[in-house]
Amino acid sequence: MLLLRRCHSLTRFGPLNTQRHQVTPAVVSCAVRLWSSSSEDGGSYQRAHGPRWRHGLAGLLAGTGAVLAYGLHHHKAEQQDSSTVQTIKKTSAFPIISQEEVTTHRSLEHGIWVTFKGGVYDITEFVAMHPGGDKILLAAGGALEPFWALYAVHNQEHVLEMLSEYKVGELSAEDVKKQRAIKTSDPYSTEPERHPALHINNLKPFNAEPPPELLSDSFITPSAIFFKRNHLPVPQVDAASYQLHIEGLPGGVLTLSLEELKTRFPKHTITATLQCAGNRRSEMNKVKQVKGLNWGIAAISNATWGGARLRDVLLAAGYSPDVAQRAFHVQFEGLDKDVTGTTYGASIPLNKAVNEEGDVLLAYEMNGQDIPPDHGYPVRAVVPGTVGARNVKWLGKIIVSAEESSSHWQQNDYKGFAPGTDWDTVDFKSAPAIQELPIQSAITVPTDGAVVDRSSEEVTVKGYAWSGGGREVVRVDVSLDGGKTWQVAQMRSSEKGQAPGPSPPPGRAWAWKLWEVTAPLPAEAQELEIVCKAVDNSYNMQPDTVPPIWNLRGVLSNAWHRVKVEIREDDNEE
Amino acid sequence: MLLLRRCHSLTRFGPLNTQRHQVTPAVVSCAVRLWSSSSEDGGSYQRAHGPRWRHGLAGLLAGTGAVLAYGLHHHKAEQQDSSTVQTIKKTSAFPIISQEEVTTHRSLEHGIWVTFKGGVYDITEFVAMHPGGDKILLAAGGALEPFWALYAVHNQEHVLEMLSEYKVGELSAEDVKKQRAIKTSDPYSTEPERHPALHINNLKPFNAEPPPELLSDSFITPSAIFFKRNHLPVPQVDAASYQLHIEGLPGGVLTLSLEELKTRFPKHTITATLQCAGNRRSEMNKVKQVKGLNWGIAAISNATWGGARLRDVLLAAGYSPDVAQRAFHVQFEGLDKDVTGTTYGASIPLNKAVNEEGDVLLAYEMNGQDIPPDHGYPVRAVVPGTVGARNVKWLGKIIVSAEESSSHWQQNDYKGFAPGTDWDTVDFKSAPAIQELPIQSAITVPTDGAVVDRSSEEVTVKGYAWSGGGREVVRVDVSLDGGKTWQVAQMRSSEKGQAPGPSPPPGRAWAWKLWEVTAPLPAEAQELEIVCKAVDNSYNMQPDTVPPIWNLRGVLSNAWHRVKVEIREDDNEE
Repeated sequence: MLLLRRCHSLTRFGPLNTQRHQVTPAVVSCAVRLWSSSSEDGGSYQRAHGPRWRHGLAGLLAGTGAVLAYGLHHHKAEQQDSSTVQTIKKTSAFPIISQEEVTTHRSLEHGIWVTFKGGVYDITEFVAMHPGGDKILLAAGGALEPFWALYAVHNQEHVLEMLSEYKVGELSAEDVKKQRAIKTSDPYSTEPERHPALHINNLKPFNAEPPPELLSDSFITPSAIFFKRNHLPVPQVDAASYQLHIEGLPGGVLTLSLEELKTRFPKHTITATLQCAGNRRSEMNKVKQVKGLNWGIAAISNATWGGARLRDVLLAAGYSPDVAQRAFHVQFEGLDKDVTGTTYGASIPLNKAVNEEGDVLLAYEMNGQDIPPDHGYPVRAVVPGTVGARNVKWLGKIIVSAEESSSHWQQNDYKGFAPGTDWDTVDFKSAPAIQELPIQSAITVPTDGAVVDRSSEEVTVKGYAWSGGGREVVRVDVSLDGGKTWQVAQMRSSEKGQAPGPSPPPGRAWAWKLWEVTAPLPAEAQELEIVCKAVDNSYNMQPDTVPPIWNLRGVLSNAWHRVKVEIREDDNEE
Repeated sequence: MLLLRRCHSLTRFGPLNTQRHQVTPAVVSCAVRLWSSSSEDGGSYQRAHGPRWRHGLAGLLAGTGAVLAYGLHHHKAEQQDSSTVQTIKKTSAFPIISQEEVTTHRSLEHGIWVTFKGGVYDITEFVAMHPGGDKILLAAGGALEPFWALYAVHNQEHVLEMLSEYKVGELSAEDVKKQRAIKTSDPYSTEPERHPALHINNLKPFNAEPPPELLSDSFITPSAIFFKRNHLPVPQVDAASYQLHIEGLPGGVLTLSLEELKTRFPKHTITATLQCAGNRRSEMNKVKQVKGLNWGIAAISNATWGGARLRDVLLAAGYSPDVAQRAFHVQFEGLDKDVTGTTYGASIPLNKAVNEEGDVLLAYEMNGQDIPPDHGYPVRAVVPGTVGARNVKWLGKIIVSAEESSSHWQQNDYKGFAPGTDWDTVDFKSAPAIQELPIQSAITVPTDGAVVDRSSEEVTVKGYAWSGGGREVVRVDVSLDGGKTWQVAQMRSSEKGQAPGPSPPPGRAWAWKLWEVTAPLPAEAQELEIVCKAVDNSYNMQPDTVPPIWNLRGVLSNAWHRVKVEIREDDNEE
């Protein structure tokens, strides 16, 4: 059932004005989507595989319990990797193929090629049978390893056997070497490797978001594809010599090693969604140019964080309620620096930091592992319910102060303004620094410009919803007709198959909800304008349209999310 | 300056399709507005006074420092009343006039008559000179006393002398008697007297809101015109024998007299805005019929409340953090009962009740006086940032419980639903009880259908803005062109002339902000569609339109507020 519905909802991806190509009846019932890494080089898309795949698909659908076991065991996957791959035998009977050649095979028309452990595979014919649906196309023209590392289900012998049937060559030795990144002497030379599925908005500093359809697949976002928003080069921090300084309290400066942070304070675990203030900025850019990275809808992710409570550490450093008479902010300084030595900085209100229900962490774990370098290794602030920019990574110093952080990012960035305010008239002092974020939701599946076949009879819409300040999302409304009529989506607040935990206490709903609606295709419609809007438990709602909330920095973009989907009538087929 | 601007902004009030009447040039520059008590009997409006008043007005404008001293000293006014009225001498030379006759004089065409201490006055000619502007028309056809009680500035000898010049008769002895309400035996017979300016939405139980333009005149709403939302008859509570019971805590039942509540616990004072969940319901009714009282935009008011903190009382009754392991709600029961003896009831989350920063009061004072009967005498809950319905009046019992209140109003009312949910499909269990309210704002001046003269050159727009949960309003945007372009309003968070207090700590901004914009009239426009929208410090914004937030109970109506105003060109005048 799950698979059938998923299949119905698969949609074709491409630029809005994508060209039509010849379509065969067999694939219409399970259209596929190709991931294009950016709007600049959005890959063209064509279909080539024929009717015979209908049977292959039906057979696979019948016996793919494996898909139901889909889990995200990234690290486990990496560990198991070396043993399971032995089952693929190398043979010299295959031609040597360059990466350049492999890269040209990224469409159904030109074939879908992938590499795996030095082998080159033409999986064009397998695409329609892939139990995980169109996600397989994310790897087109590149390596399978990063994707299989995300999906442990692939670490099974029969999967590898299946792959071996599609082998067409050996990757050239030179290109195998190139797959290990060349390190250079620039400040970004020590940056960690990143998952190739990420859509890169900026390379230095690194800013990237995952494909939306991956995002809504997992309640907990795997760290590898958790959106990355760095302001400066990733610092290399030695855990053994790491020190965290806490200043501004009656006890004087408290300095903690990583070990002390882990052992002197109880470990507290929360699941919290982080969102960049600029998430969905690209929609504001369509109204009028704004300044900032052109984020899509995926500069938001959800993880489980473990660490010491900031409250406990501040108490150990001498905090008492008296302090709140003179100090109102807690400043964070990162260890990441620009060329002048200026560190990244931000602050949060003191009452958020010390409130027992504020749940602010000095986190040293992300999804049960050490925090990865891109996310603040070894220690970052996690300020649940609060804009990503205040969740300072690579945390070096905490200062309890009468003043907000004086950093650029606190004072002259990450603030909201009226749509009429421009760079000539803006007064950054006139607006408060963004802390809690407003109600947000977006559609991850289908994507804008997708095509749904009339024979599918129904369409499945998926997405996420979240609100700042610990306000729980209580409802998501979905419209297929541009907002004229609405239906209520089903929500989930845990991984698929897992029972959700107890409802969070009021004001402590830090994690997003994923949602889904499956609805019949309207009889007469040739196009759907799918819209979503969420409501939180303060009954805050999203604004209808983008222009009235447009602002020069393109932050706080939380209008209804809209995607247009074309319905292809069956009689268009040949 | 203040007066001139006020004069420019005065606008004509009436139904949208109000008839045009002959207009004299002199009054065009300072149009007046007539209050109509409801849409059903919206008073017609005509002008009669001529050019000679231009000079009278100018003279008065020059010397009306009194207007700047306008204050709202209701009770003081009532006390001083008896002495100052002595200056009006009764004389038998005047004819006896019935109230019926007085009531017919409610328009400039038929004359504006008022009564005061048994005298009848034709103040038609004074209207244009009134330093307080068009508000004088609120008393047309009725008694001046309730209005003068609101505005202490009238308690001056020269004001009374001025009035005496307009005397035209004596009110009949019978009607003087009738001015004291006749008490009967129905459950509402002991209801308090209400201010005649209130727009009554329902008489039994009493539900009424003030005229919007009075609302935005005072940062602190005078208790007499504070919106009134009773669910049941007002109970008569004897303060001497009053008892408040606190149950559900380890210490057993704690019972407190009013005296004990006042003396055993420190008095805490907050200024907090209360809003009915149904405020602005009438706008939803225009989209599609909803169930509920047809509130305009004034089911919201702001007062200063004094009382014991609920937190302190719960601690005295045995509350400790252990209790929070088993109890999650604090239930309130009122002393107001229906015919079956069922009391009004509601509950709030325990963490709001016990949080030091929650500021929940067991209030026994409103604006520095005993709480009036309509507002919960002698003790009510004040739950700042939370929907009015949880601020239980005439408080009899507090129960700390694992469960929410089982009352109708908590379980099957005061919840939000999707626009597609109707009375056949609604499942009240599927939505959370409204607690914190979303961001809200509305335009109080001018009113919908008002006429602005081109010669005014500019228009002044006023209103209020507020958000629930202690979220501070940080910006109000105003548009004169239906939302195409926006300007930022000036805000104030205190009475005019008073310096605002220090900014509230984050999450404790309980009071609304009043705002104002004066803008040039657009050169070409014949009509203005004035729109406002507010932003709180979590950057929550109001939705653009009503239909997508429509819900069957007509609650949470917080779309952009829109009023249409006609610009009358000067060449229309004769």
